[in-house]
Amino acid sequence: MQTSCGFTTLAEEVIARCRKLATFSEDAGGTRRTFLSAPMQDCHREVSSWMKTLGMNVSVDAAGNLRGFYPASSPAAPRILIGSHLDTVPNAGAFDGILGVVLAIGLVRSLDGLRLPFAIEVIGFSEEEGVRFGIPFIGSRALVGRVDEELLGRKDERGISVRKAIQDFGLNPNEIPRAALSDDVLGYIEFHIEQGPVLEHLGWPLGIVEAIVGQNRLELTFYGQSNHAGTTPMNLRHDALAAAAEWIVAVESLARRAPGIVATVGFVEAKPGAMNVIAGEVRTTLDIRHASDGARTEALDELIRLAESIAARRGVSAKWRTLLAQHAVAMDPFLMEQIDHAVQKAGCEPHRMASGAGHDAMILAEKIPAAMVFLRTPAGISHDPAESVHLDDVAKALECGNHLLTQLAASQEFLGRTCRA
Amino acid sequence: MQTSCGFTTLAEEVIARCRKLATFSEDAGGTRRTFLSAPMQDCHREVSSWMKTLGMNVSVDAAGNLRGFYPASSPAAPRILIGSHLDTVPNAGAFDGILGVVLAIGLVRSLDGLRLPFAIEVIGFSEEEGVRFGIPFIGSRALVGRVDEELLGRKDERGISVRKAIQDFGLNPNEIPRAALSDDVLGYIEFHIEQGPVLEHLGWPLGIVEAIVGQNRLELTFYGQSNHAGTTPMNLRHDALAAAAEWIVAVESLARRAPGIVATVGFVEAKPGAMNVIAGEVRTTLDIRHASDGARTEALDELIRLAESIAARRGVSAKWRTLLAQHAVAMDPFLMEQIDHAVQKAGCEPHRMASGAGHDAMILAEKIPAAMVFLRTPAGISHDPAESVHLDDVAKALECGNHLLTQLAASQEFLGRTCRA
Repeated sequence: MQTSCGFTTLAEEVIARCRKLATFSEDAGGTRRTFLSAPMQDCHREVSSWMKTLGMNVSVDAAGNLRGFYPASSPAAPRILIGSHLDTVPNAGAFDGILGVVLAIGLVRSLDGLRLPFAIEVIGFSEEEGVRFGIPFIGSRALVGRVDEELLGRKDERGISVRKAIQDFGLNPNEIPRAALSDDVLGYIEFHIEQGPVLEHLGWPLGIVEAIVGQNRLELTFYGQSNHAGTTPMNLRHDALAAAAEWIVAVESLARRAPGIVATVGFVEAKPGAMNVIAGEVRTTLDIRHASDGARTEALDELIRLAESIAARRGVSAKWRTLLAQHAVAMDPFLMEQIDHAVQKAGCEPHRMASGAGHDAMILAEKIPAAMVFLRTPAGISHDPAESVHLDDVAKALECGNHLLTQLAASQEFLGRTCRA
Repeated sequence: MQTSCGFTTLAEEVIARCRKLATFSEDAGGTRRTFLSAPMQDCHREVSSWMKTLGMNVSVDAAGNLRGFYPASSPAAPRILIGSHLDTVPNAGAFDGILGVVLAIGLVRSLDGLRLPFAIEVIGFSEEEGVRFGIPFIGSRALVGRVDEELLGRKDERGISVRKAIQDFGLNPNEIPRAALSDDVLGYIEFHIEQGPVLEHLGWPLGIVEAIVGQNRLELTFYGQSNHAGTTPMNLRHDALAAAAEWIVAVESLARRAPGIVATVGFVEAKPGAMNVIAGEVRTTLDIRHASDGARTEALDELIRLAESIAARRGVSAKWRTLLAQHAVAMDPFLMEQIDHAVQKAGCEPHRMASGAGHDAMILAEKIPAAMVFLRTPAGISHDPAESVHLDDVAKALECGNHLLTQLAASQEFLGRTCRA
């Protein structure tokens, strides 16, 4: 179908709306809108007004998710969810998360009032970044039934619990179970900026996420022998920093050889850390990710073996502990294929890629078919006021989404799907 | 000459005396005796009493150096200086510096009252470690005329200046010029623990220092591009920590290949320093030393070129600045040769080695012939309460020193030397 006002005009509106929402902030100097903070009320009011103009029924669930329901052609029809999150990091840009919600409203608008054989629920998740309570995905967790007492009791820096924050926002935490996915949900689609340099590097506006990478985070410590930098000859040293450095180089080298692996050492601390003392202890970290759990685990095992052998050769020891182990989450093959078609129909290359970061789609994929479309991110910059999108890319995303809705509306296979729940 | 009581008995006394002095401390739990601190008065009183028993004239110069004069056979005879420093680092051992002073008194005792054709001035320098005022060698600087107004004005953590500290100790800072070396000094000899593992590794009790290494200290910073550890593929990274790690490995590798070089990276800091963020900036340091200035400079130049080429290849930049540049100081060839003979006469291997650390002898060598004898340091441990010496090694050092005094007393070449001053 074609929209009456044109995708570029719609894209201009989407970008203007994202920039408008960026003004609702806890901070005077930049954008910061954490879970159920005061400016989230303003954000909800604004987004609700856009939804209502399109004839959508608007509600806020007990986890603070803003939900706009655009009815189907028949009352008994199933629904699809389209959205992303409305919270931000501190000193944020205007598009991370927000774009996915505003673009979903743009897609409803692109229908020009046409009813489809499924309803569209546009969802603006209350929390994805994990800033206020140190735990991410509170909004989408509520949809899959993973907001438990432990989470509700967790406190922010001012000692306010999640439960209290929900009450302060005028919501009833006891009603969170009612935020869970209903049986009529066919799937979840999320548009999101890539937050990386890959699409820009390839010169393509859109990317189709095939999996959200699994990841391990480890702390590794090398224990050597602290000694005088002047009086200890090279052959009698057990330098923990030289050992760590050799391993950091090996981490990079292995990740460069193994397709799809990203492995990062972002932290290092040498003790005692004096310029004239050989380091006796070096603590460092590893962050390793891959779309395949097997490939990730294999690379991780190899890197641990390397740390141990580098250490052993130097009369140093290496100890490690796991801080995070998270498996990869595959996106729904049927939805990916449909997005492939829609992307091509919009005149773009259907580039499949892994998402290196977690997203709400990763949580919803536990229960329903989920898919994601990435938009090229200029210079890969996000979590920064300089975060941006190209107008043409947003127009392409809207066109692709519009094609996707048309395809899904015509797919008996899709409409015949039953929700796992 | 042979001493009446035996070198092992003398060595036992030397070790016991060092351990006694370690009890004079600013800290209750360990030894810390900084420049002109209260326990230094106790230390002076104790050491003075040992000196006086041997008929030495004791004084404290205006820089706080304790000086015990053992007269020669004739009043017009020249003198030699033997000593080391009486101050300590925090949480110190009992032998660093102290041993050289106490052993010098032991050597005077080993003469059994015999007068030599030169006087012996045993000197306990007030300051070598640089702990209190952040600048080392205050004691020996006074002997070569390098205590200037800038140094006198420098303040400790409590805001007390060097000048004030001298006054508070009951001394007159205006008299510091009178602490300078007199024209009759033939040379300076210092016994000191090695503070490194070389002699222990070789299995030899004594070492003859041929030079005190020159050294450079640099700060090097690598500037890359901070980025998301999950969304930035390996081939699009400009990882400052990977660059620094490659260079740290190269530093070690070059130092291992170049004989006599010691090069150390003891400090590293990655920014932002988060485990899921590629490091955009890494600050690190280099400490490089060698007994030859040419060899040191050549290696340093090569390491800077390597930093620049490693950085360039990665789209990273490297900047560096010099924090310290100090040339090597050769010990006096005649005195070294005499020590060679004395060491062999004591039944030991005359192993020549560089001192990787600075010592008072380095300062005095600016004006007079200076030489040093190292004592094996168990496990290379110093600046630690576990610092120790072997009784047999101290006995060998005393025997060697005693032979040396005999040789020098018989050497017309030595006695005919005129002081450079």
